[in-house]
Amino acid sequence: MGTTQLESVPEPKYWHLKTVLSEALDQDFAVGEILPNERELAARFGVARATLRQALEQLELEGRLQRRRGVGTTVAPPRLGVAVGGTGRGWPSEAGEGWQPVDAAEGLPTPAVARLLGVDPQSRIHTVRRTRVTQGQPVAAELLHVPGGSVPGLSAIDAPAGPARARAVLRELRRLELDGQDRSVELGSARADDAKELDRLPGAPVLVVTTRYLTADGTAAVSVATYRADTCRLTFGDLGDVQIHPDDTRQAS
Amino acid sequence: MGTTQLESVPEPKYWHLKTVLSEALDQDFAVGEILPNERELAARFGVARATLRQALEQLELEGRLQRRRGVGTTVAPPRLGVAVGGTGRGWPSEAGEGWQPVDAAEGLPTPAVARLLGVDPQSRIHTVRRTRVTQGQPVAAELLHVPGGSVPGLSAIDAPAGPARARAVLRELRRLELDGQDRSVELGSARADDAKELDRLPGAPVLVVTTRYLTADGTAAVSVATYRADTCRLTFGDLGDVQIHPDDTRQAS
Repeated sequence: MGTTQLESVPEPKYWHLKTVLSEALDQDFAVGEILPNERELAARFGVARATLRQALEQLELEGRLQRRRGVGTTVAPPRLGVAVGGTGRGWPSEAGEGWQPVDAAEGLPTPAVARLLGVDPQSRIHTVRRTRVTQGQPVAAELLHVPGGSVPGLSAIDAPAGPARARAVLRELRRLELDGQDRSVELGSARADDAKELDRLPGAPVLVVTTRYLTADGTAAVSVATYRADTCRLTFGDLGDVQIHPDDTRQAS
Repeated sequence: MGTTQLESVPEPKYWHLKTVLSEALDQDFAVGEILPNERELAARFGVARATLRQALEQLELEGRLQRRRGVGTTVAPPRLGVAVGGTGRGWPSEAGEGWQPVDAAEGLPTPAVARLLGVDPQSRIHTVRRTRVTQGQPVAAELLHVPGGSVPGLSAIDAPAGPARARAVLRELRRLELDGQDRSVELGSARADDAKELDRLPGAPVLVVTTRYLTADGTAAVSVATYRADTCRLTFGDLGDVQIHPDDTRQAS
């Protein structure tokens, strides 16, 4: 039985170096270990500093390295698998899957949020801020936008602000019957407020997950959650949170 | 009824510039238009070249700008919504959703693929290469790994290579009864062969979608698909391919 070779393509220098470095990380370095400085590494592998820097950037993008100011470049632990979509595909839970309500505010939606919700831009909405912590690490920051009409029983008097207010909005939202969700994932950069909660600099790469919660009456709420792209692998499953081995996707092909 | 302000955070200079530039893109530039050069832009906004460059990088990450060698920086069209998961959450289709079979090869799996498939690293597998085109643009490149045991009826004689071989593997795979899928999405960088098919340089940011196809007997196939992170927004839906307005997520919060 014959073996067909898939077409091969010439690789640029930094790409080849990246592959070599990646193997060196597997064999010679432990998670958390600080790499030698750029001058030393460039000398060791016999490449120009610019080539080295490109290869290091690739490895950072793939989650193999972390570069932190004042610390240097360290070997990253495997990415965390973080389940997106929730158990039972239901409403955002009041305090599950590591989500922590932080605050809730009331005000006018941005034009884009108004469009996503299908509401009048002049109608007031509630915005709940939550953060998500997995295995002790901040992994996501979320703004959940809820039109007043979705939470008609919400009292303005009880819990006027803070986490208690956020929980009150979520509790009222869960009274509605949910028909389904749709969701999109795209690359983005962390806004200043999210970056702070994610322990990153503004502009760090994030995976932006936008979820619409749908009822018979239309869109009842919209969540915009930003996940750290360096440390997270988002998981989606028919069969619950089946874990793909953390090292697998990185070398899977 | 009182209005609570969410906590505000000081923003770095490039971040503020990014916001200003983003508004300028909305108001003063058309999709596809070439931006003035960096020197000119830095002068117009009264910032240092380094600050400008950081802001441009952010806008590229968010899919607002495209930088192409020999062309310059242009205003990007809205990202394409690309449905992930397939209609009916079934097997990969033979030729649906814009997927095109390119080739199929037979050989030993990498250790990572063997682990994902749960097969002996010494057992031969079929690897089908496909590309996906949406609205005339290449959006994804995929390797679909199929153990020989999943396609026992596959003849070695008919269609020994090329797209016909790829179709034959897919056709045999679809004979199995599918129990479900699990899927993960993470940030990665394009391998040289994928980059070529995606019309990008090796190392360009991609969204790596790893899917395991599960039957009663275990994992029947594993797909590793890389989507262009600059031009694609991956969509997942309970309700089929509900389109979120392309401009929405970018300004949604």
